[in-house]
Amino acid sequence: MGIRFEVLARDPTGARLGRLHTPHGVIDTPVFMPVGTAASVKGVTQQQLEALDCQILLGNTYHLYLRPGHELVARLGGLHKFMAWPRAILTDSGGFQVFSLAELRKINDDGVTFRSHLDGSEHFLSPERAVEIQMALGSDIMMVLDECIEYPAERERAREAAVRSLAWARRCKQHFDQHADAQRQALFGIVQGGGYADLRRENADQLVELDLPGYAVGGLAVGEPHALTCEMTEATTARLPAEKPRYLMGVGYPEDIPDYVMRGVDMMDCVLPTRNARNGLLFTSAGRLAIKNAPYAADEGPVDANCNCMVCTRYSRAYLRHLFASNEMLGAILNTIHNLHFYLALMRRIREAIAAGRLAQFAAEWRAALTGGGTHSA
Amino acid sequence: MGIRFEVLARDPTGARLGRLHTPHGVIDTPVFMPVGTAASVKGVTQQQLEALDCQILLGNTYHLYLRPGHELVARLGGLHKFMAWPRAILTDSGGFQVFSLAELRKINDDGVTFRSHLDGSEHFLSPERAVEIQMALGSDIMMVLDECIEYPAERERAREAAVRSLAWARRCKQHFDQHADAQRQALFGIVQGGGYADLRRENADQLVELDLPGYAVGGLAVGEPHALTCEMTEATTARLPAEKPRYLMGVGYPEDIPDYVMRGVDMMDCVLPTRNARNGLLFTSAGRLAIKNAPYAADEGPVDANCNCMVCTRYSRAYLRHLFASNEMLGAILNTIHNLHFYLALMRRIREAIAAGRLAQFAAEWRAALTGGGTHSA
Repeated sequence: MGIRFEVLARDPTGARLGRLHTPHGVIDTPVFMPVGTAASVKGVTQQQLEALDCQILLGNTYHLYLRPGHELVARLGGLHKFMAWPRAILTDSGGFQVFSLAELRKINDDGVTFRSHLDGSEHFLSPERAVEIQMALGSDIMMVLDECIEYPAERERAREAAVRSLAWARRCKQHFDQHADAQRQALFGIVQGGGYADLRRENADQLVELDLPGYAVGGLAVGEPHALTCEMTEATTARLPAEKPRYLMGVGYPEDIPDYVMRGVDMMDCVLPTRNARNGLLFTSAGRLAIKNAPYAADEGPVDANCNCMVCTRYSRAYLRHLFASNEMLGAILNTIHNLHFYLALMRRIREAIAAGRLAQFAAEWRAALTGGGTHSA
Repeated sequence: MGIRFEVLARDPTGARLGRLHTPHGVIDTPVFMPVGTAASVKGVTQQQLEALDCQILLGNTYHLYLRPGHELVARLGGLHKFMAWPRAILTDSGGFQVFSLAELRKINDDGVTFRSHLDGSEHFLSPERAVEIQMALGSDIMMVLDECIEYPAERERAREAAVRSLAWARRCKQHFDQHADAQRQALFGIVQGGGYADLRRENADQLVELDLPGYAVGGLAVGEPHALTCEMTEATTARLPAEKPRYLMGVGYPEDIPDYVMRGVDMMDCVLPTRNARNGLLFTSAGRLAIKNAPYAADEGPVDANCNCMVCTRYSRAYLRHLFASNEMLGAILNTIHNLHFYLALMRRIREAIAAGRLAQFAAEWRAALTGGGTHSA
């Protein structure tokens, strides 16, 4: 069947209510994808993810390639079977981690040579290789290899990376068309261009010529101000075909998520809910809460009185603080479940707001509630 | 209502099928109690413990006294409410950890002075104080303070510790009778006497005069051979009243558990299933399995083909090995769930065997299956 996307409704803001059909289930969009780096969303079982109504996970190709290895995963029936996850999976290309995590990177037009952060071994990642690895993993959606640059970056550097990323996207597409099973997997493109709207527009226009089933906005959420993330996202989505899903990579803070949706974004992923959970930072409908703080030691209330997750309905702040202070694994587990529920519940509310044509109002109220009326609180 | 114990059936071996009524539920015995050291069974949620059909947990008074503190737990409604665990809880007296974990112990007939292993602060634990702390925690069953000695220990040292433990038990009982609510909590005694059967018999006979609602066999599972554990257990339970529950503290390996039950033991606790799980050691119906071993890397089978736990029905050895090798939290979580299921399922089979009058046969078959026919494999 492959990937199929339906836009069910549009909001006056430009937000879209959609449905993404994948070989492993139908996903309501806008959707947030929890990050399952090494074939596991850190701290939670697959059963708990199902109970949270998580419909799609993100897997990191770089990590899975290094350990346990894509060939082993393929031999064991692919990533879904390996990690016992029957729902959809999107994998990144590995590029982002190569550029952010690996050592001794040498990049040229062919691809990128790097050393594993685990054992220093040398590896080569090319557009073709990125597709091969993701074919072995068997993700529902795979991403093209792109060159990820730092923020801020000079215009010329951003332009060159965008040009190279486009050339790599063409090679990914060619390799995919020759070797992959389009009934089983889909290849998404990634628009680059740094913080330069004209570069992004040009890059998007050229990328769209490849007629891929979906497009991502890449190279953002790397430290730039929220306003720039919004501006670049808007400049990009304006040039993407309306009938294809758009994926904004690596975002974001809960108060910012509606802003991206209002700019036509259908898919997002971020480590914030899971990583913050392990650091004791909890998201609530009144803003963030650092569970280690002393006032919570005797606080019998739930993390968030407006939350109906299994953590808030059963456990107190006092207990969660004790678990965190005692370095008990259960602290990280419960914090993760709460934070993931918070994000997934937010996406449900966003979809309801789009359906009701009132997303702009919801976004303003939501930001005010989370930040005390201020702007970005990152 | 307090504690009430019924013996429903006796096996020819001396094993008993029973029912322990507590203010927080009825427990089928023989029972295994998972250890929830710091108000958490490491790696699993309370929901998962309920799904495992765990009916009673053990809490460590020493740890809870130091952090978060028994007074805070009392202020928050007691340990059940604090940790959101509606079923039964047994707490130890804190003595074992003081003697094994704390620093700079000074012991005399009054009690024991020690330094916290967390921050070096000085504390004093007396029989009265141990009861006070456990009253604050609100456990269904509390234990008397006893002097725990090393193995091996000279006869005179074992005798002195047993005499002191008996005197402390009397003071615990007196303090409990004056201050505690016997409808809400019960106090169990602990028989000491090291590896000397006559000391144990004498200690048991004197302890039984206190007419406590239950008795423990203490000071075992400290490194002595399995045969001695059995001998001391048998010497002790022979002197304990038949109508009261018997608790063998700190045992044991799965292949040994039936041996204790055959000597009239009704309750046990041990960190083995949970601690081993975190170290990647899994219990199976064919013996132990170190999940880190290379042959499991491509093993699509479950940990134990005879196990119907949520781990064995969903995840492969290959996946669990990957999680362990990658130091993913989920590895420890799933291993813990499997190992706890293994112990709790064993106890169900033991209860069935007692009811059918065939525990001796089951015990022999069980040991043979787990150890390949040999004796103790610790």
